[in-house]
This record gives sequence, structure tokens and C-alpha cells, in this order.
Amino acid sequence: MAFQYLTNVPLDEALAEYMTALEERGLFTQRSETVSVKQADGRLTASAVYAKISAPHYNACAMDGIAVYAKNTFGASVTTPVRLQPSQYNVVDTGDPLPESCDAVVMIEDVLWKDEGEVALFAAATPWQHVRQIGEDVCEGDMLMPSFSRITPAAMGAMLASGNLDVDVLVKPRFAVIPTGDEIIAPTATPEAGAIIEFNSTIFKAMMQRWGTDIEVFDRIVDDPKALETGIRTALLHYDGVIIIGGSSAGREDYTAQTINAIGDVIVHGIAIRPGKPAVLGCTETGKVLFGVPGYPVSGMIILEEILRPIIMRMQAQPLLPPNEVKAVVSRTLNSSLKYREFIRTRLGYVGGKLIASPLMRGAGIVTSFVKADGIIDVPQNVEGYEPGQTVSVRLLRPIDDIKRTLVITGSHDPLIDEMTDLMRRHWPDATVASSHVGSMGGLFAIKRGEAHIGGIHLLDESTGEYNLSYIRRYFPDGGVLLVEGVQRVQGLIVARQNPLSIENFADLARNGIRYVNRQKGSGTRILCDYLCRKDGIDPGAIDGYDREEYTHTAIAALIAAGSADVGLGICAAAKIYGLDFIPICHETYDFLLLEEAYNLPMVQRWLETIRSPAFSERIMKMGGYDVCNPGKVTAF
Amino acid sequence: MAFQYLTNVPLDEALAEYMTALEERGLFTQRSETVSVKQADGRLTASAVYAKISAPHYNACAMDGIAVYAKNTFGASVTTPVRLQPSQYNVVDTGDPLPESCDAVVMIEDVLWKDEGEVALFAAATPWQHVRQIGEDVCEGDMLMPSFSRITPAAMGAMLASGNLDVDVLVKPRFAVIPTGDEIIAPTATPEAGAIIEFNSTIFKAMMQRWGTDIEVFDRIVDDPKALETGIRTALLHYDGVIIIGGSSAGREDYTAQTINAIGDVIVHGIAIRPGKPAVLGCTETGKVLFGVPGYPVSGMIILEEILRPIIMRMQAQPLLPPNEVKAVVSRTLNSSLKYREFIRTRLGYVGGKLIASPLMRGAGIVTSFVKADGIIDVPQNVEGYEPGQTVSVRLLRPIDDIKRTLVITGSHDPLIDEMTDLMRRHWPDATVASSHVGSMGGLFAIKRGEAHIGGIHLLDESTGEYNLSYIRRYFPDGGVLLVEGVQRVQGLIVARQNPLSIENFADLARNGIRYVNRQKGSGTRILCDYLCRKDGIDPGAIDGYDREEYTHTAIAALIAAGSADVGLGICAAAKIYGLDFIPICHETYDFLLLEEAYNLPMVQRWLETIRSPAFSERIMKMGGYDVCNPGKVTAF
Repeated sequence: MAFQYLTNVPLDEALAEYMTALEERGLFTQRSETVSVKQADGRLTASAVYAKISAPHYNACAMDGIAVYAKNTFGASVTTPVRLQPSQYNVVDTGDPLPESCDAVVMIEDVLWKDEGEVALFAAATPWQHVRQIGEDVCEGDMLMPSFSRITPAAMGAMLASGNLDVDVLVKPRFAVIPTGDEIIAPTATPEAGAIIEFNSTIFKAMMQRWGTDIEVFDRIVDDPKALETGIRTALLHYDGVIIIGGSSAGREDYTAQTINAIGDVIVHGIAIRPGKPAVLGCTETGKVLFGVPGYPVSGMIILEEILRPIIMRMQAQPLLPPNEVKAVVSRTLNSSLKYREFIRTRLGYVGGKLIASPLMRGAGIVTSFVKADGIIDVPQNVEGYEPGQTVSVRLLRPIDDIKRTLVITGSHDPLIDEMTDLMRRHWPDATVASSHVGSMGGLFAIKRGEAHIGGIHLLDESTGEYNLSYIRRYFPDGGVLLVEGVQRVQGLIVARQNPLSIENFADLARNGIRYVNRQKGSGTRILCDYLCRKDGIDPGAIDGYDREEYTHTAIAALIAAGSADVGLGICAAAKIYGLDFIPICHETYDFLLLEEAYNLPMVQRWLETIRSPAFSERIMKMGGYDVCNPGKVTAF
Repeated sequence: MAFQYLTNVPLDEALAEYMTALEERGLFTQRSETVSVKQADGRLTASAVYAKISAPHYNACAMDGIAVYAKNTFGASVTTPVRLQPSQYNVVDTGDPLPESCDAVVMIEDVLWKDEGEVALFAAATPWQHVRQIGEDVCEGDMLMPSFSRITPAAMGAMLASGNLDVDVLVKPRFAVIPTGDEIIAPTATPEAGAIIEFNSTIFKAMMQRWGTDIEVFDRIVDDPKALETGIRTALLHYDGVIIIGGSSAGREDYTAQTINAIGDVIVHGIAIRPGKPAVLGCTETGKVLFGVPGYPVSGMIILEEILRPIIMRMQAQPLLPPNEVKAVVSRTLNSSLKYREFIRTRLGYVGGKLIASPLMRGAGIVTSFVKADGIIDVPQNVEGYEPGQTVSVRLLRPIDDIKRTLVITGSHDPLIDEMTDLMRRHWPDATVASSHVGSMGGLFAIKRGEAHIGGIHLLDESTGEYNLSYIRRYFPDGGVLLVEGVQRVQGLIVARQNPLSIENFADLARNGIRYVNRQKGSGTRILCDYLCRKDGIDPGAIDGYDREEYTHTAIAALIAAGSADVGLGICAAAKIYGLDFIPICHETYDFLLLEEAYNLPMVQRWLETIRSPAFSERIMKMGGYDVCNPGKVTAF
């Protein structure tokens, strides 16, 4: 079994080395093509554009009125009007050519019509008044735009106005994208275990199109070096480069690097970043790009952004502007390897005047993290990580103004939070919500630290059987928080359809052969689980899977539906989504903590309006396992 | 001759009234359509999107290595390795399904291969390590995106990964654009006097496409109410609205308002803004948009931006974010009417830590002002204007970071400045230059006030015949400025080809029947003209056209080429562009003032490198009438 190690070249070095190789081989030699101006929106001028005719191309009347020779009106005033005979003026409309022997236009409002076509003027005209003289906008020979300018709608107008029907623009970079791997299948195919749905090419194509390139996605190629080589060579005939997805590491079925080496040269194989390390930066002798991208979507996106985008910008003679960075406070410990520069997706929230970064799950396969992300924390190679409260630099993925009006909800997971978000957006399309699942205790502490506006909690006080209230009294002795009534929901055991293992109650979890899946520490459901263990006298160590942790109710249900676990504690709605059986255990109160100082924010008021609306109650009743009494009722502490 | 007055409704009121009318008639009822996810980049979700399958949809190995049952490895350490028999592990690659009865993966690097298939492990595996569990990315039933979310490349990936092949998106607004007017011609036609090249539809189409709409441009319709009504009614069959370009005012050939009134209702006719006042905001009974736009391109662009964009955003359930505004110092007096809210295009430059706004020409027909503009000064209705040095709010049209690295050149006009700009961009594609023509004295004062980095000057000292030096000594007694050697150029009389009026020298300008065109006060060429008058004993009042002022050499040449004037003073290069005759009068020195504190800025150093380059000398020698000695030589004062 062959095993090679990848290099661990710092990102900046890898990019510089690759750029140099591509430049030496001629990739950045600009090529131009002529396109119709009407089709040129957003393209880049290949050379300076000059006016071919002046605009306007004739002296044009700029008002409706009469054209006159100004000298004939000199001396006119309110007391001594000047009269002009019909031969001394011409009635004109805006845009008409200024008649011969006239050099000014008098507005129609300022003309008094007398008998027999005579007119009286009460003010003298100044020469060239209300006349758009030839070249007022642009003169023949004037430069409209220098080379490498982005063509805007106004520029299109200016070109047409000045006799430019066509324009020389830079040829768009053209790339082929080739997904590889025996295991990948089209999104349309039925997914069996081991079959990976191929969606990377769709993401990468859309990204590269946004950078101004033409992209063609080729059919998948299986893990066979010969087939791969043939595929790449074919694509190279028509494209400036080939992006090969997958097989870029150094495993037994990774053929990208060796194939690139057979066709051209590997410049770098392995970059000291995470995610994205196993990338292959190669090129042909003539400077065509051969780019091996890891198969994990997040790795691929990072590598494209960090390496390919600079190349594509340079191919289009566009500057690579520094990323738009802001300072934010991290909400939790962030460990990072000294060996790698790490790019960590994060949510951002603006709470009480502070910008808070809540890092998202880091897995290279978690593409939804890029759907949720507001920014990216760039952790340098020699940094071990950050402690909560430390200030970090975050590259923005959304405008900061958007983030400033985002409602930050955290705490316990319940699908109803997403439903509330959707209801809010349907009512106020500018509403944005950033929600994250950190468990009830996590939510409580986030509110205490002022890192979220709202925290969802369902915290059982074992001594009283009461929910939430005693926790608030204990953790917020000085107030600063409001309790917003949420919902009643049923917690219970989620089991496979028709309950094949005949699980009847909580005590059954300790039975032999039952695979449990638990929620994470600090979640209200985990606290409930521990309480039930104590109540029934069950040793958690006796439960198989007690240490297997998931973060959401749906994740528990998904594992049970797939047969990877037999039972989990969760809410009825999750069981219902998967058509699973549900054994009710207890009712609980799911409420919201609201930061008192946030109460008057418009986004919080909208949220309160939403939770109080019949539409909200209607939606969650449909989900099943909920009950509402007076949702949105606010209690101060 | 009928003459109606337009109303003068404040912009906010006009927009609010129009929005209400459109809403009541149902324009903002959202419609959805289903599209393939692969085609959905940038579209807006019509409803919340949920995962249909979990991703991953099976427990997947996350590393190349061996899959094991973790409990079998418990106790392993460097001193007490655990040995596993071939039956106790499976060799797996990344992405493989986790085999039955396994719950963890050990990385290949951590496996020691023994004889007969046995392996040794030196560390215990924790359950579920290096396994991407079902739903790690997203679980079936989880909401991926709420309603009205903009679909990104990552979102496309997340949808495909979770079994969404199609997605319901909002239908794009569809608009028809109809240019009107007897006088307008296609850009391809030969432009005769009075014929207006129709380029508005191209600008408006591109603008509206950028706002997410589908646009069709219809053939021009002549100034005939019947034809216009038929054209609009036809377009209404297939579109959400019709944009009628031209005829929107109240003149004798303006039929837009009356036609809209015949088809539906005019809500507002006449808005208190400049440019853009004569707009018609109308709609049909069923809430389709009937929008009459003034024929002047800048008026139309402002009206589209201020009225139509909010409507289009609302049709797509998108928030209308407040414009990105910055504070800047105006460089010159800006008069504004109390009757109108004015939108004044401006250049912006960042000089010595101050953001300087240099307003551009305001004419509603000057489309190039939008090509040059970095921002728009929004002057409220009740404000009379601003004095130089006053701070104003400017809406940005370009990123502020772009503006911060822009080299600001002002002063005397010479086409060589544009050529330098082009050379710089070809060498450093991120170079940006903002140049404006304010005359030599204007340039000198701009440098003195610290409002530009570089000022082009050619200022003759009549007493010595020397250029520039005495002015610098007089206006910069305390230094703070450097003189950068520019070029020698020939000034002379530009006359029609073959000099039909036999103009031979400057004194001929006073001859009867000679129409002169002058340069503006403060320009070096005007100073030269006045000097020549004095030298030849000519009374400027005797020169016909002495008060007719233009701002550039090419504008002078354009008027002469068109026969609108007979002679003007200017540089040889301008005459050459138009194929005009040129009578040399004198050589002059065109130099650059450079703000001393700007000397070390990278953009200034690039500019110096450019002016010193052979490429620069080569380019200007081709233009004709120039000579260079030591361009770029810096002299301190």
C-alpha cells in the first residue's frame, strides 16, 4: 500500500510559487475579443476606449421654446421688453438642432405671444443659453475609459452616444471542471450507502461564474489514472485550465497529483491550511492551469477562494482587493493547530454594541456552515487559538449593515425557531435571524454574557419539577433579563417505526442490545435524561451510547431512522418528520430568555409580534407535540 | 399651443404615494416558479427550503484508514499496543460507508501493519472518531433557508446534498422598455443634426437586469398618442410594467402622461428633484407599472434609481438598504435650488487624510458624468447649496477602499493625462486615477488647498516669458510643493481644414465675420489668449465669441470641426484628432505640481515611473505637437 506524505507549504508561499510558474509560462497574457456594446455589461475593456463622435454631435436645443440670436434680445427687461418678429426666432422643442444664425434658446414659459406671430421677451438671452453644444457630454477623441475598466450601464450609454457600437474586451477565462471518483453519483441518482452525491461542481461553477469566467462541467471520471489523463487532455484543448475535484490527496485511490505530473508539472502538493490541505497546484508547459481540489466541499471552496480566485482576477487584470475585515469577540474557545492556518466559518451578531463571533462547525464536509456563515475567522499558522472574549479579525461574507440588524437567537434546539424566522421574513423581508444550537445552558450563559438577544431554554429544576424560573433566579440575581413564554412540548423516546425492540419506558434504555444516542452536555434534553436516570435509578454507564452525542432533535431522529441507533430522547416533532414511533415521557416548558436591554430593538419587537401571532401557533400545531397557552407573554425579573 | 405645468411633489411623498397605489392594486403579490437548483444561483427562495434527506445520508468514513469497533481498542497505548486480527477491522477510504459493527476509523498513519494481516494500534479509538455521522451536515426536515433568501453557491450545494433538485423561487419581475420620439435613431444609424442616438434603453436595461429583472427593449415608437397607446397595451400583455422613455414632460409633443391616463392612472406627474423632475408615475387597474421616464439619460438613471428600484426590490421581497454614505469636503461652491432636491454626481479623492468631493458637470444629458462619478451628493430640497470646505454626505458608487487608492490629478486639460492613466493601468491594473479639468489656476489652488495630489499647469509669466516657476514662488512661498517636469507643447490656432477664412495670426481673430471660441477663465490657454490680446493690442470685446467658453482642447476642436465656430486657441494634438488645420503660435511648458506630502505614496511613485517611461514619451509623440526633455524630473521649492 503506497503512502506518500503531502507537503505543508504556507499558503502565501504556495500562491506566490504557483503565480510565478503560471506567469512564466504565459497564463497572464491578455487576449481580447470584440463584442457589441449592448452585450458588454460587466466586461472589462481590453484597451482604452475613445469617443468616435462627439455627444451631442450637433448643437441641440435644451428646452422647449424659441431659438434666437442673443444679440437681438440685449437690453430686454421687465420695463423695456424686446419684441421679435417671426423671422427673428424659431419655435423649437428639446433636442431640435439649433437653427442657423441662432445662438440661444428662450424657454417657452418666458415667451409672451403677441399678435401676428410677434413675441415679447422681458429678459435678455445670454449667448448659448439652453443650448447643449457639440461635445457637451464628450468630444470626439476624448478617452471614455482606460484599459481594464469594468463596463457599467452608464459606460455602455457613453460608448453608444460617442459612436462606439463595439468594444474590445478581455476574453473571459474558460475553465473545465471534472468531478472524479468511483463513489460519486449525480444528484438525480438514488443515494445508496457509500454513494456520494456530487454537488461540488455546482458550487464551484457558480463561484467561478461570479468571478467572471465561463465554466463547463464535464461528466464524472472514475478512479482510473488513464481515464483521468485522457479526460484532462481533452478538456485542455478548449479551456484555460482544468479543475479536478477529488483524488487530490495521497491515498491509495488518489490519482490527481500523478496525472497532473504526467501532463505537466505539480508546483505544490499540500498547503498548510485547514480545511483545504490536500490541494494540487499544477500547470502545463504552456501555462494552462491544472488544479486538483479536495473532494470535501468546504475544503474545495476555501482552496478556490484562496488560490484560484487570485489567478482568475489576474487573468482579467483585476486587482485582488484585501478582504473586508472587522473585529469581533469570539464567544467560545477556539482551538487551532500550530501547523495550519485555519479558516473557520462563523456567525456574527451585534449585541449591545459588541460584534460577537460564534464559530460554526468546522467539518470540511459541512457545506451548510457556508450557508449560515456571516464571516470567516482567519487563524494564522502560529496561533494556538483563542479564548472566549478575545478579539479576532473576521472576513465579512455579508454586509456589516445586514449583520447589525440581525436578531441573534441561541440556546436549545427546536425547529420552531426556524419556523419563527420564516414567519418573520415573510412579514418583514428585511428581517434576518442568526440562530445557533448550544443547548439550554449555553443559551442561558450567552444571554448572561450579552452575546445573544434571545435564548431558548427548557431547564428542569429537579427539586420542584418547575421549568426555567429557578434557573433565572439563580443566574440572574440582579435581573437584566426577561422571560418570554414559549410553548409546551412533549419529550419522549424516539424509536424505529413500529418499535421493533419493544421499548416501553426510560428504564428500557439500560437493556442489553439497545443502542442509545444522547444529546450534548448542557442541553435541556441531556439534563432531562440525567434526571430520568436518577429517578429510575439507572447507571448512565449501563446505557450503550450514552456518550454518543448529537446537537439537535432531528439529528437524533435521523440516526434512528437510518438504523445507526435504536432510541433517543427528543421531541415529538422530530419523530414525526421521520415517520418514527414516539413514546411520550413528559411535558416540558420551552421558553425564551430575552436580554432586557434588547427589548426595544425593532427586531425584538417584530419577533414578539411573530410569536404572539395566530400564524405562529398554527404552524407549530401542525408540527405536532406542541401546545401553547400565551406565547410571547413577557415576565420581568 | 397647449402648455401644462408639472406638479412638484417631494420625492419621498411621490414614492410613498406610488407604492401605496401599486400595493393596493396588487403588484406586490409574490408569484413563484420552480427551477432546477443548478440554475438557481442568485435567485430568491419563494418559501422555506427543508432538507429532504440527511447529509451525509449514511455513516461515512472521514479518513483513509481502518474501521474498527472502538471498544476493541480500549487500553491501547505506546507501551501496550492493542493488536487486531483481520476480522476485527476493515480497510476503508474516505467516503466509504462505515462497515456494520464498526463505530470508529483509525487513520492510516496510525496503523502499524504486522504479519498475516494483523495490525497494531498505539492509542485507543474513541467511538465515532473520524466518522461523518448521518446528518452531520444537515438532517432531513431541517430548514436550510427561510423564505426570500438569496441563493448562493453554497446554498446550491446544500440543497443538492439534501435531496432538493428543484427549488421554488420568486418569479423575476418582467419589464418592457419602449423608447419614444420622432427624433431618436438607433446607434447604428448615421447621426444627422437633430437625430438623437437612442442609448437610454441600453443603460436602463442593464441597470434593471442588475436589479434582478427580465427586460425586453421594444422598437422605438414615434410621437403619436395612438401608436404609443397600442404599443403600451401590447407590452402590458406580457410584462409587469412598461417603462416609456421620453415624452414624459408637458410639452407640445409629450404624450406619455396622457397615454398613461388613457390606459390607467397617473399617480404623480412631476417630482421635486433635479435631474428627473418630468417623470410620470402611473399604473393600470391591476397594478401594472406604467412609468414615464425623461429622455435625458442622467434624469432617467436618477428616476430609475430613486423610484423604480424600490419597487423592483419590493416585488422581490428584498429590503431596500440605505445607501452607503460617507462624509466629504466639497472643493467648490455648489449652488442648488430650494425648489428641488438635487442629485449631483461627484468625483471623490482622498488627499492628505481628507475625503474631497469634486462635483462633476450637472447637465441631465451628460452621461459621461456617471462614468466618472465616484458618488452622488444628495442636496436636500431646502438647502441652497454648499461653500467650499463644507462637509457633505455623499452616496458611494464605488468602494471607499478603491477611492482611497485613487490618484487625484486636476488642473489644466491635456489628453496626455488620460494617456498616462491608461499606461498606469496597463502596468498596474489596480491603479485608479481621478482627473478633472479646472484650468491651470484651478489646479494650482487645488494643490494649495490640499485637494489633489497632482495639478497640471502651463502658466505664462508675461514679464519674463517663463512658465510656471514664478507662479509657484508666488503661491507657495513656504514650499510644500514639488515641480515635476512635464512636456513642451505647441499652442496655436485651430481652424477648419484648409483654413477657408485664411486666418494667419492671432490678430486675425478681431476680423469681422470670424467666430472665435474661447477657453474658460483660469485656464492656462485663456491666460495665453489674454496675453496675446495685450501683446497685439487687440480689444477682447472686438472678438466675436470671446465670451463663449469651453473646458477642453478637444471641445474647441469639436466646435470648429462642426462649423459652429471658426477658430480657437489650443494644442496641436486636438487639431490632429479632428483633421483640422493648425497655425502654431508658441511653444509652452506643461508641468505638474506635486503635493510634497504625497511624494512617497505608492500611487505617486507609480505615476512618476510612468511619466519617466519610454512608453509615455512614445505615446505622446504619436499624438503630435509635443516634445519632451526630461519628463518626471522633480524640483523642490
